Amino acid sequence: MKIWQKDKAALAEVDKFTVGKDREMDAYLAPFDVLGSLAHTIMLESIGLLTADELVILQKELKQIYKEIAAGDFELEEGVEDIHSQVELLLTRRLGEVGKKIHSGRSRNDQVLVDLKLFLRHELQTLVQEVNVLFELLQKKSAEYKDHLLPGYTHLQIAMPSSFGLWFGAYAESLVDDLTVLQSAYKVVNKNPLGSAAGYGSSFPLNRTMTTALLGFDDLNYNVVYAQMGRGKTEKIVAFGLAGIAATLAKMAMDACLFMNQNFGFITFPDELTTGSSIMPHKKNPDVWELIRSHGNKLQALPNEIAMMITNLPSGYHRDLQLLKENLFPAFQSLKDCLRMTGLMLDNIRIKENILDDAKYQYLFSVEVVNDLVLSGVPFREAYKQVGLDIERGSFTPGKEVKHTHEGSIGNPGNEEVSRMMKEVIAGFPFEKVDKAIEKLVS
Amino acid sequence: MKIWQKDKAALAEVDKFTVGKDREMDAYLAPFDVLGSLAHTIMLESIGLLTADELVILQKELKQIYKEIAAGDFELEEGVEDIHSQVELLLTRRLGEVGKKIHSGRSRNDQVLVDLKLFLRHELQTLVQEVNVLFELLQKKSAEYKDHLLPGYTHLQIAMPSSFGLWFGAYAESLVDDLTVLQSAYKVVNKNPLGSAAGYGSSFPLNRTMTTALLGFDDLNYNVVYAQMGRGKTEKIVAFGLAGIAATLAKMAMDACLFMNQNFGFITFPDELTTGSSIMPHKKNPDVWELIRSHGNKLQALPNEIAMMITNLPSGYHRDLQLLKENLFPAFQSLKDCLRMTGLMLDNIRIKENILDDAKYQYLFSVEVVNDLVLSGVPFREAYKQVGLDIERGSFTPGKEVKHTHEGSIGNPGNEEVSRMMKEVIAGFPFEKVDKAIEKLVS
Amino acid sequence: MKIWQKDKAALAEVDKFTVGKDREMDAYLAPFDVLGSLAHTIMLESIGLLTADELVILQKELKQIYKEIAAGDFELEEGVEDIHSQVELLLTRRLGEVGKKIHSGRSRNDQVLVDLKLFLRHELQTLVQEVNVLFELLQKKSAEYKDHLLPGYTHLQIAMPSSFGLWFGAYAESLVDDLTVLQSAYKVVNKNPLGSAAGYGSSFPLNRTMTTALLGFDDLNYNVVYAQMGRGKTEKIVAFGLAGIAATLAKMAMDACLFMNQNFGFITFPDELTTGSSIMPHKKNPDVWELIRSHGNKLQALPNEIAMMITNLPSGYHRDLQLLKENLFPAFQSLKDCLRMTGLMLDNIRIKENILDDAKYQYLFSVEVVNDLVLSGVPFREAYKQVGLDIERGSFTPGKEVKHTHEGSIGNPGNEEVSRMMKEVIAGFPFEKVDKAIEKLVS
Amino acid sequence: MKIWQKDKAALAEVDKFTVGKDREMDAYLAPFDVLGSLAHTIMLESIGLLTADELVILQKELKQIYKEIAAGDFELEEGVEDIHSQVELLLTRRLGEVGKKIHSGRSRNDQVLVDLKLFLRHELQTLVQEVNVLFELLQKKSAEYKDHLLPGYTHLQIAMPSSFGLWFGAYAESLVDDLTVLQSAYKVVNKNPLGSAAGYGSSFPLNRTMTTALLGFDDLNYNVVYAQMGRGKTEKIVAFGLAGIAATLAKMAMDACLFMNQNFGFITFPDELTTGSSIMPHKKNPDVWELIRSHGNKLQALPNEIAMMITNLPSGYHRDLQLLKENLFPAFQSLKDCLRMTGLMLDNIRIKENILDDAKYQYLFSVEVVNDLVLSGVPFREAYKQVGLDIERGSFTPGKEVKHTHEGSIGNPGNEEVSRMMKEVIAGFPFEKVDKAIEKLVS
Repeated sequence: MKIWQKDKAALAEVDKFTVGKDREMDAYLAPFDVLGSLAHTIMLESIGLLTADELVILQKELKQIYKEIAAGDFELEEGVEDIHSQVELLLTRRLGEVGKKIHSGRSRNDQVLVDLKLFLRHELQTLVQEVNVLFELLQKKSAEYKDHLLPGYTHLQIAMPSSFGLWFGAYAESLVDDLTVLQSAYKVVNKNPLGSAAGYGSSFPLNRTMTTALLGFDDLNYNVVYAQMGRGKTEKIVAFGLAGIAATLAKMAMDACLFMNQNFGFITFPDELTTGSSIMPHKKNPDVWELIRSHGNKLQALPNEIAMMITNLPSGYHRDLQLLKENLFPAFQSLKDCLRMTGLMLDNIRIKENILDDAKYQYLFSVEVVNDLVLSGVPFREAYKQVGLDIERGSFTPGKEVKHTHEGSIGNPGNEEVSRMMKEVIAGFPFEKVDKAIEKLVS
Repeated sequence: MKIWQKDKAALAEVDKFTVGKDREMDAYLAPFDVLGSLAHTIMLESIGLLTADELVILQKELKQIYKEIAAGDFELEEGVEDIHSQVELLLTRRLGEVGKKIHSGRSRNDQVLVDLKLFLRHELQTLVQEVNVLFELLQKKSAEYKDHLLPGYTHLQIAMPSSFGLWFGAYAESLVDDLTVLQSAYKVVNKNPLGSAAGYGSSFPLNRTMTTALLGFDDLNYNVVYAQMGRGKTEKIVAFGLAGIAATLAKMAMDACLFMNQNFGFITFPDELTTGSSIMPHKKNPDVWELIRSHGNKLQALPNEIAMMITNLPSGYHRDLQLLKENLFPAFQSLKDCLRMTGLMLDNIRIKENILDDAKYQYLFSVEVVNDLVLSGVPFREAYKQVGLDIERGSFTPGKEVKHTHEGSIGNPGNEEVSRMMKEVIAGFPFEKVDKAIEKLVS
Repeated sequence: MKIWQKDKAALAEVDKFTVGKDREMDAYLAPFDVLGSLAHTIMLESIGLLTADELVILQKELKQIYKEIAAGDFELEEGVEDIHSQVELLLTRRLGEVGKKIHSGRSRNDQVLVDLKLFLRHELQTLVQEVNVLFELLQKKSAEYKDHLLPGYTHLQIAMPSSFGLWFGAYAESLVDDLTVLQSAYKVVNKNPLGSAAGYGSSFPLNRTMTTALLGFDDLNYNVVYAQMGRGKTEKIVAFGLAGIAATLAKMAMDACLFMNQNFGFITFPDELTTGSSIMPHKKNPDVWELIRSHGNKLQALPNEIAMMITNLPSGYHRDLQLLKENLFPAFQSLKDCLRMTGLMLDNIRIKENILDDAKYQYLFSVEVVNDLVLSGVPFREAYKQVGLDIERGSFTPGKEVKHTHEGSIGNPGNEEVSRMMKEVIAGFPFEKVDKAIEKLVS
Repeated sequence: MKIWQKDKAALAEVDKFTVGKDREMDAYLAPFDVLGSLAHTIMLESIGLLTADELVILQKELKQIYKEIAAGDFELEEGVEDIHSQVELLLTRRLGEVGKKIHSGRSRNDQVLVDLKLFLRHELQTLVQEVNVLFELLQKKSAEYKDHLLPGYTHLQIAMPSSFGLWFGAYAESLVDDLTVLQSAYKVVNKNPLGSAAGYGSSFPLNRTMTTALLGFDDLNYNVVYAQMGRGKTEKIVAFGLAGIAATLAKMAMDACLFMNQNFGFITFPDELTTGSSIMPHKKNPDVWELIRSHGNKLQALPNEIAMMITNLPSGYHRDLQLLKENLFPAFQSLKDCLRMTGLMLDNIRIKENILDDAKYQYLFSVEVVNDLVLSGVPFREAYKQVGLDIERGSFTPGKEVKHTHEGSIGNPGNEEVSRMMKEVIAGFPFEKVDKAIEKLVS
């Protein structure tokens, strides 16, 4: 077999294999690589590894490249292995030898570590914003449909009255807990690994505290061995954060598919948002929901995939880590797509009126009636027996009114409280501080 | 086949199948079920569903049962299905009909939800304490072995000097991030689901804010539909928190097995902590480390197992959730065992002196020498070339001294900063508030 | 902390940790350990490591122990670490020093390997039989309900006519493919690892071909390094085989829960097989199905758990492998319980008559009508348009008769062909040969 | 937020979301879609749904398109949703209305099902061939290095003599079991779902037996409901088949990385196949092996991902299934790359001579010596004691000769037997029959 000769073709295959999708993945990291270099060079000058003049021209050109990336005028050239090389190449081409100096006191390992952290931090921030937009829509819908009753199921059996107010509100509150988990991922991300070099530090007198401040990180990954150990671990924690939001959306999608099913028939969507058939006029396929569910479940498998890839690797860098990018980087876009599609669907939802008028829901209110009797002084067992007999005799005709008043119930869904919780969680993300630091660095 | 007849034997099989390991699992929940009832009954009295007299005798007896559980004088009797029934049975046996009143305004669904939350909260608290004990040992060892050098590997190839100070310290710092993630699990846990009834609330005027305060919860799971939706989701988040700590221990165990391997030969342990053979005197099997690794990896699979079991279930209670207890409940003990075993091993570790004197580590210092030349004014390319030539000529004889000074490096591992981070994380757990509330409730 | 001293208490903790649940798990292996020794001793005599006399008394006593195990008169005594030690202890207690000779030319590693293989082979055989029992019931039900129509859904939307004949039959056919996968697991299992010693073979002139024949194995795990490498790998493959059957049952359970839901209302079960409430007479909770689904999904996570535990372990034995038993061994019982419970439920199923008479299913037949027109010569687009117009005008009144005739359709479900496939698959298991070998060995 | 308006931009977003990567994925299916249509049209003519003339021109054009695809002259045009539409479009453009007739008696659901099966069957066939090439190389290397000893490890501790003959041979034998598992996947794949329409069959008198024969399938997926249920399930089984091979390669890669590590130093590779550094001349980074390991572990996570995406979906088609293609389709290429890279590396491996001469391996032979004494008549305990004393006294000087003779041991690795097993497994794949059928169909 040809490939087993170490000839040119074989070596080209090796090259293709080792580079893999890395060039494509590195495109995600481009602006963040430049940010890292902006901070790193300021620090280098402070410890005498760059002159003041060198710093000035490097900063100017790096900011220029940053703008080019933002404008879409940037690409990895043919034959350039990764983003770090591409930036260095541009600098050298434009500035000469001084361009190479940005690599002093740094290795690829900590450079990619800091790129990853900055990228993930940025993605998490925009994700939080998108989650919050959906959260507010869910709360709005919860208020709008507060009194729209639907049957509540346990064991998938008709059980008790529920409401669309509760249904929308439940998913809003779910997002609060999801962001609580995501925040821990953000905290793990928001620590500076730059300066850990190849995972064992450097004999240069680097000032890591300075780059930490410049890049707006909250703290350092101090121990250089741990800074390297954070690779893979960080990605797994972030993936679990995404998976939580994804699970919430997937569950809502499952509910929606069920509620759209004609046997339930609780909700419908405009024709433009479903697919159908002219000879089966009742058929409105919930393709968007099904794909939200499927993307959501795929995202749920991601933390496990990452764990499988890093488990039992001893400490220190391994090239294995390169492949973690491939499913994680596109996951952000996938999740944001799902958030937007969920919003689009919900904003166009149509909910059936008077669902509970259907005879099959007649016993939904039996527990209510028992409770009413208890509240009026009848002992529980007596009340229960009386209602049971009424049902047996066919004389059970409850008023279909729900008078739930406690916190979080149909009549008092507690959306303001949930909104307050969401605000508290979001306030725990130091977005403003980060934005300021980055703005200062690039302007 | 007999079993397919609905005869007595078949129904006994059904019973065995549906109960499963639930009686065994419910033993974990016993004290927490009583705590829930203590708070619930106080609230019931406040809204007129219990008289003041009834409350007094119920509280007294519940506290008595709580003490019996603590003393180990409690068990699920033969034929009693679950913990809730057992407590009610004891109350009724001792107090008569009033014992049944603790069930008013509550369903099994929110009762088990609150039991779970209280159980998980308690387990997380003791876990944090055990993690902190190991953290402190790691920091102590890091200080003790600050200057013990070992080779640092990248790609499993000898790369740069590292130290046992860094190695121990890295795992200490890893635990800080692990507790950051665990804290988000704690926050999700520490909200009150009691009062959500069967997942759709109640027509009784329950005061959920009161039970929240009584049980020391930070907040409510407001929306009753969400309170139920938290089942499974909460367990998954907690499992991921455990998995993070487990992954840290498993990775350390992998390192330890490698370092104990005679080709490395960096560390040994006393004979009592390894297994060996009299005709193979060098063989010291690291069974304890291997089992820490294996338990750790098993725990890493747990969040995925839970996700698999709850994915695509529509909202509302399903009996599926019962089985989540089986691998999650014992996971706490398993993880605590691993923490203690890791501590025991590390406290008895013996580290080889002068590891780097071995000739195979001679090139470890080449990067240092290049850097030294650069710092003394030689341009990098020149310095690099010069060292490369020295190596080629066989005249490379570096001083084996490491002068790393930056934050987190060999000479400045930053343990105080890491300790500060750990303290900040632990301060974020409201243990004191919780302890006070529980103490008040049971005394 | 006490435990970190190497005092007696600490060492007892270590002992407890390393033994773990192994004594409990080894109980599963008891009869198979004796089978291995029966074959091993015959072989030892053949190569001169046992005398003829020694063989006679060892065989006699081993067969006696085998009977005791079968009769339930066997247990791991307090302080005995594992099944191998227990058997050796009994032999030595009863026969003196000769009892120890069964260990010649064998290590614990290949002893547990062969025990595992014999155990798994046995469990797979009984599993196949139980699957076949359910298969036959499904086929019987398929025939019985051949003409009972129900709506077929795509996208969970009402789409086309289906039948309970097809529904039962589909799950029967699913089991055929499941057993095809299980058979590959059986083939991997049914090779002899005995004689691989600690994974590197032995300097004794062992006759592995002889033990292969004696134990009824199909072939050897030849390469001794591979024989050891099969540990973990074999368990994973078996677990995937179980997971396939489990997925089939879980999916059927999901369908059943949906069909029992009152919005569908297609099937019911006797009260004894559901749980309900006297004030909610319509509520029949499908607890048995929900637990089948949950057990099934838990089993689906098992192959991943095993993969996580063995990934990235270099070749050669590691103690990690011990823990693989803990979730795999009970999985067989769990799956068999699910098979029986599924059978019990299905044998007592009650199916609603004339489901399709409900108005909401009126468009189910539109595709049929179009096809009928096409078959009678009307061009497709014409036929389609005509039916679409009829529906729009409200004049669409199809006959609700289904005339599907092709292979596998409502009118011709192909159960005999599926039965033929099942028989072919089952014939591929060499159960008879295995049974004969074992019978010869123990009698 | 704009997107929540159902305006044109929003609908374009919906379109983009629902199409996703499907156009890219459908490129994999192109030739197989044409094969399906070739068989389907022959069958349609046989039941009178096409005239003989129509059949002739359709067949001619379909074969032409098949050739264009093979020649790379085919692409999904802008705005064409999927492969089925593209083929129909080409036919209609070239032949007029008759082009649309290929869709009679078929739905997208069974069309994609049969495309998938044909694609997977084809990929599995080429995969088996590539596995066999590596198998033969491993066997060749095993023979070549039969007498090259290396230390065998248990618990990662030096234990017993092993050989590179065994090491290579073990991985060869591992591939035999891997193909056994893969064969079950092939069997599940190699059944015909065409004719199941939307999962509920058709009122046309389709002849599914005919298309089964035409497409070279072994059998039918009879039951139409099961045919649809096979979607997702089949992919999961195939993914598990790939994962097994991937696990074998990943484990070998782990061994290779360890053996290349300088503390082991057993193997090296030419500079062209590793990456290094001029100032660290000993450093030869095993990037290729690390990426084989990483790809392998990623593939190991794939069956779980698929399970997560399909779990708890009720029977019947769901759009969720579309996304299963995204990680599965590229997995074949990824695995084949890994197979080739493994071959390339192994064919260029350099193995150190006389590894066991190093003093640290001196006790490797102690078990051999004990066994020799036993074979010469010394009782085991006596022999063991004697060797133990020799070691203690420092007078243990074993001859370093290995005389293992039994099946699968160093002196008798059994490669011919393993080769025989591999041939038996490969003979179980009906490749010839399939090739003939396809050749007949397209020529």
